[in-house]
Amino acid sequence: MVYLPKKVTVKEVGPRDGLQNEKKQINTDDKVKWINMLSHTGLSFIEVTSFVHPKWIPSLADCFEVAKKIDRVEGVTYSALVPNQKGLEKALAAEIDEIAIFMSASETHNQHNVNRSREDSFAILKGVINDSLTENKKVRGYISTVFGCPYEGAIEVAEVLRICEKLFSMGVYEISLGDTIGVATPKQVNEVLSLIFREFPEGQFAMHFHNTRGTALANVNASLELGITSFDSSLGGLGGCPYAPGASGNVATDDLYYLLNTMGIQTGIEEKKLKAAVRYIQEKIGRRLDSHSSRLLEEFL
Amino acid sequence: MVYLPKKVTVKEVGPRDGLQNEKKQINTDDKVKWINMLSHTGLSFIEVTSFVHPKWIPSLADCFEVAKKIDRVEGVTYSALVPNQKGLEKALAAEIDEIAIFMSASETHNQHNVNRSREDSFAILKGVINDSLTENKKVRGYISTVFGCPYEGAIEVAEVLRICEKLFSMGVYEISLGDTIGVATPKQVNEVLSLIFREFPEGQFAMHFHNTRGTALANVNASLELGITSFDSSLGGLGGCPYAPGASGNVATDDLYYLLNTMGIQTGIEEKKLKAAVRYIQEKIGRRLDSHSSRLLEEFL
Repeated sequence: MVYLPKKVTVKEVGPRDGLQNEKKQINTDDKVKWINMLSHTGLSFIEVTSFVHPKWIPSLADCFEVAKKIDRVEGVTYSALVPNQKGLEKALAAEIDEIAIFMSASETHNQHNVNRSREDSFAILKGVINDSLTENKKVRGYISTVFGCPYEGAIEVAEVLRICEKLFSMGVYEISLGDTIGVATPKQVNEVLSLIFREFPEGQFAMHFHNTRGTALANVNASLELGITSFDSSLGGLGGCPYAPGASGNVATDDLYYLLNTMGIQTGIEEKKLKAAVRYIQEKIGRRLDSHSSRLLEEFL
Repeated sequence: MVYLPKKVTVKEVGPRDGLQNEKKQINTDDKVKWINMLSHTGLSFIEVTSFVHPKWIPSLADCFEVAKKIDRVEGVTYSALVPNQKGLEKALAAEIDEIAIFMSASETHNQHNVNRSREDSFAILKGVINDSLTENKKVRGYISTVFGCPYEGAIEVAEVLRICEKLFSMGVYEISLGDTIGVATPKQVNEVLSLIFREFPEGQFAMHFHNTRGTALANVNASLELGITSFDSSLGGLGGCPYAPGASGNVATDDLYYLLNTMGIQTGIEEKKLKAAVRYIQEKIGRRLDSHSSRLLEEFL
């Protein structure tokens, strides 16, 4: 018999990872309304925005306003991505619950993504993590391109382990391992996680899959079988990565929900409310979303 | 370590299961040209058409002409779906290599699909199988709705076992287990196949997944881990099932190829030629295909 966890935490990253990569800009009030809908679906974690300079991600220029305007529902953690001290200050002023920091497993991707080396990233992130913890904010770390890089190809697991060690030693409570360009297979997930779990407990990791080649749910299942209980996803499959050629959206929250729920794994999510939130953002984005579940909505409801 | 087979046979069903469910009709010469392209990709099995009455599937009314006009490449098995004796006669006259028969695990779906009970289907199929074997044609059996029925919901594995036993005893060499409406999860695949493999060897089965809810490759992976080495798929994700509400295309051959090839499983398929065949049928169908791999083609090649 295959082991599957009883309960999984779904971390909704659509308002950040999703919207930052959509051509169509959503106005602030619509974002706020959407996040408020998400807050009532049973999701316990929402990454609401990114406090990066608007020059880099214009669609999230309203980060402060969004964070201030949304309702804060009890039991829901509202997180935001922060690239540096300046972003952190803004995030703290906006009373974000939890801070997310990020870097790449690949040196070249890190250079392309944040215009500095991984070593320089460590120095900056150390300060951000320190100050977050001083303010009693938990910090979550993203490592991108763990399963492959658009510039370097395969990534050594030793590199990933080295970064995990650094980030954990700086104080992050969880690392989200990203398949940024959606190249991973269950076999690779198995191999990579088996090596990582020799060094660190599985409870300290989340998985962040993109569905570029249709393998995301297969990779989720492989991760579940290895004891992972935390997954990032984006409602309707919104999102991608603007600096990774060939990237497409995150695994869709609604498809992830289907898989987990059908396999008897608790998520706390209410399907009807999730579907209403899919319909809402689909209408605002003005295009057919990529998730399989949202296509079924269109055809049969 | 997880067990994975070294080699898998991909059975291309696009010209039949795919085209029978596309709105746009493809003319005979284009079909023939496409099948000829498929014959040179390294695929060893192509289900080229269905010898059903054109009243039921007008888009395959040219079944005889297609089967007669295509080049027969050595090492490739050309199969066709046959519903009854009349279809078989036509298929034999067209010199089809192998016969495929079909029925549903669900009584209600069988009624909707072929307008008769499963018991009546057995009687008809027995004659078709007999006469095929007399003509030295191997016979492959499809069982649809194995993992769920649009009318009845869950299907008892005992029912599937009963049908397998009947079909094997009539002389089919392989049974393709269909998730016709694309509801299966890896957990269910595990449970169902484990029960089936108590009674029959895994080498006698193929899996036929639809990607309606995005779980097809996850289900393929679960099947591989249980020793399945034969999979049906449709190039570009063409296809579906007209009598099953909510059904969408078969798992895409190009996405299946990505998964298998990346995991080091041999298929004999040449990627470049497969992509050329995707481009060809996409142009003829005149719409963006559903496979993930074909979307990457559009954007980056």
